[in-house]
Amino acid sequence: MPQQVTLKQVAAQAGVSYPTVSKVLNRKAQVSKETESRILQAAQQLGYRPNQIARNMRAQRSFMIGYSWERSHADQVNHILDQFLTSMVEEAHAAGYHVLPFIYRPGELHVNDYRDLIDTGRVDSFVLSSINYDDPRVNFLIERKFPFVAFGRSNPGLDFCYVDVDGGDGTRQAVEYLVKQGHRRIAAIAWPDDSRVGNDRLCGYFEAMQAAAIEVQPGWIQRGQGVFEFGREACLRLLHMDPSDRPTAIVTFNDTMAIGAIHAAQERNLRVGKDISIIGFDDAPMSQFLQPPLTTIRQPIRLVGRKCVEMLVSLLDESQLDERCVLLKPELIVRASA
Amino acid sequence: MPQQVTLKQVAAQAGVSYPTVSKVLNRKAQVSKETESRILQAAQQLGYRPNQIARNMRAQRSFMIGYSWERSHADQVNHILDQFLTSMVEEAHAAGYHVLPFIYRPGELHVNDYRDLIDTGRVDSFVLSSINYDDPRVNFLIERKFPFVAFGRSNPGLDFCYVDVDGGDGTRQAVEYLVKQGHRRIAAIAWPDDSRVGNDRLCGYFEAMQAAAIEVQPGWIQRGQGVFEFGREACLRLLHMDPSDRPTAIVTFNDTMAIGAIHAAQERNLRVGKDISIIGFDDAPMSQFLQPPLTTIRQPIRLVGRKCVEMLVSLLDESQLDERCVLLKPELIVRASA
Repeated sequence: MPQQVTLKQVAAQAGVSYPTVSKVLNRKAQVSKETESRILQAAQQLGYRPNQIARNMRAQRSFMIGYSWERSHADQVNHILDQFLTSMVEEAHAAGYHVLPFIYRPGELHVNDYRDLIDTGRVDSFVLSSINYDDPRVNFLIERKFPFVAFGRSNPGLDFCYVDVDGGDGTRQAVEYLVKQGHRRIAAIAWPDDSRVGNDRLCGYFEAMQAAAIEVQPGWIQRGQGVFEFGREACLRLLHMDPSDRPTAIVTFNDTMAIGAIHAAQERNLRVGKDISIIGFDDAPMSQFLQPPLTTIRQPIRLVGRKCVEMLVSLLDESQLDERCVLLKPELIVRASA
Repeated sequence: MPQQVTLKQVAAQAGVSYPTVSKVLNRKAQVSKETESRILQAAQQLGYRPNQIARNMRAQRSFMIGYSWERSHADQVNHILDQFLTSMVEEAHAAGYHVLPFIYRPGELHVNDYRDLIDTGRVDSFVLSSINYDDPRVNFLIERKFPFVAFGRSNPGLDFCYVDVDGGDGTRQAVEYLVKQGHRRIAAIAWPDDSRVGNDRLCGYFEAMQAAAIEVQPGWIQRGQGVFEFGREACLRLLHMDPSDRPTAIVTFNDTMAIGAIHAAQERNLRVGKDISIIGFDDAPMSQFLQPPLTTIRQPIRLVGRKCVEMLVSLLDESQLDERCVLLKPELIVRASA
């Protein structure tokens, strides 16, 4: 009986791919009875021993996709997590994988958690989210040549697989919609300039303004943290501008800031949707129940989750990747606030 | 060199518990350097071989806690998931465990997923949520004597470990608060009578009404699915009652129904918080931003997540469980709607 039969030999003998063999022998696969018996027969013919199988399987492949997310503030909720994680878990299940959540820690420290999961063989791959410029996790995983797919982009020069929502397209749609409604003085309540996602969305704003031949006035761009209070304050500042410059419409970079802006406008006795138009970003739960219901940009989060896992499984199976970069379009949801 | 050295022998030799040994040898533990070296020394003295370690470890313990949740409707979000899962992942990490999410399927089929995870050794234990009467998962796991902790209760007779929020106490607090404000005609927009959680909350309503010597009028209890539209319709029905019976205050069993009720009251030109008081349940994200901001009941979800994992780890370590049933108090968050 040969001592060093490898899974690749079993795969060759059975005429199936390496990942299929490894999944079947690890009892993780959903393949036809016929394929399964062909693999088991090949394993037996070659003298592939169960304990060796177990050892190889377990040492080489865990069929686990590591995923970590930022902890929310005490009174906030990550409204994307449910859709994103559920779709990943479902897609992973269909491919014979599991998603392994692990703790998030800010900054460089977090890289150690990734290293530890790799070194202990806990995961075969990662999905990353909350990506920003110079993300240490991205740099680390590229250097380790460890498979991962990111929900989001990082520095333009880096080559890695990602799925992202085209945020610039979202704000572009918002501005174009406002222009069509006859608005010319359109402001943006945006994120700080160290935000990759925020800069992307701001580009869309500038592009759409330029396309409409509108000169962006100083003061129309308000940048700050994406919280209710900043949205409120920024809107108050915009409403204090000289009447000839004062915006009649505002695009915001998330729903929470949009709600702050709506409150500010209502404090000034403006009818939102009539005297001033405000557009959010996210379509957070309950945005539809606000008064007025929020016009906003919805991201296809479930599709992002599915695509991330789909790309990862292709990477792991070493099959041909159709595309390494997937950019999905968000959708303008028109309600009464604009 | 002995062939069949067991982890128990290593544990005895090192003078520590079996789970501690297994965690250390599986590189999952956070123990003192001193304990670690004692265990490694004992393993060496007894001739405990790495590959045997690996095999035993992997066959016997995965240090995984399986968890599955119901998929949300397309336009809804499970706002509890973020807090619950994040707190479980953090608590599990501290104890050397991971949480393993897996797909949810409705009904009896779902039991197969639990069976499969057990039979393939993927998990050591489960956390269950969305528990109801006659829950097939609960019955199956009790029968298999497989460790689990439930977030929620099932049939009164069943003996298993659970952590739950005392929903009855929540509605009791809501009614008591309304009574103190001078309300006597208090209605409840509740869930169908096959909901374990709903019945618990309804009991709290009846108890508080009885304690205030208020006779509950027919028609004050509206039962239906916990969606916006039902909250709205139920409120309209309540507002159509004879003026002598017509409620001046409503407790609802979730925030979504409360929002429906608020919309209905506003359609009837009532000022919510003045002409009629409405209390929600959940403190969902954005409830604070509604107009008026929603008075509601907040559940200590993070604490539930931590407690579930804490109990589970005690079960798995076969250490003494201080309590098999933990009932946590929710908190009334007073805002402007009541």
